[in-house]
Amino acid sequence: MDQVPIYERERIDELLTHDLKIIQSDEVFSFSLDAVLLGRFCSVPPRGRVVDLCSGNGVIPLLLSTRTKASLTGVEIQERLADMAVRNVKINGLEDRIEMLRMDLKEAPERLGNGTFDTVTVNPPYLPVPNGEQNVNAHIAAARHEVFCTLDDVVRVSSRLVKSGGKVAMVHRPSRLIDICCTMRQYRLEPKRIRFVHPRADMEANMVLIEAMRDGKPEIRTLPPLIVYKQGTEYTEELMDVYYGRRDALLDSSTT
Amino acid sequence: MDQVPIYERERIDELLTHDLKIIQSDEVFSFSLDAVLLGRFCSVPPRGRVVDLCSGNGVIPLLLSTRTKASLTGVEIQERLADMAVRNVKINGLEDRIEMLRMDLKEAPERLGNGTFDTVTVNPPYLPVPNGEQNVNAHIAAARHEVFCTLDDVVRVSSRLVKSGGKVAMVHRPSRLIDICCTMRQYRLEPKRIRFVHPRADMEANMVLIEAMRDGKPEIRTLPPLIVYKQGTEYTEELMDVYYGRRDALLDSSTT
Repeated sequence: MDQVPIYERERIDELLTHDLKIIQSDEVFSFSLDAVLLGRFCSVPPRGRVVDLCSGNGVIPLLLSTRTKASLTGVEIQERLADMAVRNVKINGLEDRIEMLRMDLKEAPERLGNGTFDTVTVNPPYLPVPNGEQNVNAHIAAARHEVFCTLDDVVRVSSRLVKSGGKVAMVHRPSRLIDICCTMRQYRLEPKRIRFVHPRADMEANMVLIEAMRDGKPEIRTLPPLIVYKQGTEYTEELMDVYYGRRDALLDSSTT
Repeated sequence: MDQVPIYERERIDELLTHDLKIIQSDEVFSFSLDAVLLGRFCSVPPRGRVVDLCSGNGVIPLLLSTRTKASLTGVEIQERLADMAVRNVKINGLEDRIEMLRMDLKEAPERLGNGTFDTVTVNPPYLPVPNGEQNVNAHIAAARHEVFCTLDDVVRVSSRLVKSGGKVAMVHRPSRLIDICCTMRQYRLEPKRIRFVHPRADMEANMVLIEAMRDGKPEIRTLPPLIVYKQGTEYTEELMDVYYGRRDALLDSSTT
């Protein structure tokens, strides 16, 4: 661990699970509930190859290293985040399991190969590029807004990277649901599992987890809603279980 | 009421709300939770025109008569059900509010006019026509399977009947979600509100309510999940409220 540099205004956080550590900085974009839930929700093969697009500081490959023996690749376009991700792999001694690449995802199919991954995960920027007022911090702006890639780019590239029958899992804003579903189908990714996350049981969803299968048959399962808070700021037991990796099963298989 | 004939093997049920009565028969297809929820979920104009497709025994126009002063039209292709619907209108004294038409919905735009309705509601058959083994009872088969109309027919016709800016509300199986979303968008119906119904809080959804706006902007709200049962066969309070029309608001407006 000594050889991994931690720069000014960075900090090391616990990844809250399996003794993983993660370098973060409020100057870029810290991992959030979205990434943790995607890391739990996605189907992963026991072995094989998984790629995470828009990988940021690498939180999803780190989480997935606890769920699979597959080789894990992270793709991140921003140099500062990609560098942080490389250090995060080192700090956890996972260099033989995770490869972090600084790369524009639009170049990924050509550089990594078409149809070569069992699973693609992606926590893409949620918002279209706004007219005028952009977030002052360019790193955060790129993580939130479609500066480097649009939803169409993300879905098209995912479809090219994944094998026929392989999975593409995404976390996004539910307001974009119809765009996501129609774009996935356009690129032969058939949504098969969906789960909505609601801050409270009586509130609208503010997050959606969706997993598609390349060349899958049209038929989707809507998993039980995931409720984040009981009341006030107290997490539900289920959220805590999912967060700490105690109940992967609920996200992965039917409870009907 | 004396002049309305009730045939053998038919019965009169309470519609559970607002003192409405409804003639039903187990030989055809009794109204169900699906229809009641759609009747509560859909946006209705205070006045104007509403049409209900696949109207069956007319349960949805009957329910809507308690929510709006709009003129209500029901379209049903099966003679026996359409006849029952006409008698249901009479038995409730609603002849001046509801018109029931025996008609193939595919002829509706030509006969009723393009872009003439503020709201279209539809509780279509859920299942593709199976190969071979059809339900023995032809009436029930037609209500459950796409014998007389497909999802594409229903969405295309709804899109033609509704005004620009008007609403099309549908209840369906969530397994067909992607077909519904993509077909709606194909016919310029943009889904704007969606609500999943789960038998229990920890079970997958078995019903979806979705409302689209003709020529609407892409952005959808995912309403809080509606949970049917607490445990055993005890309904949740919310379901009871919705069922008995005590809490329309929750289905109609945001609670975020």
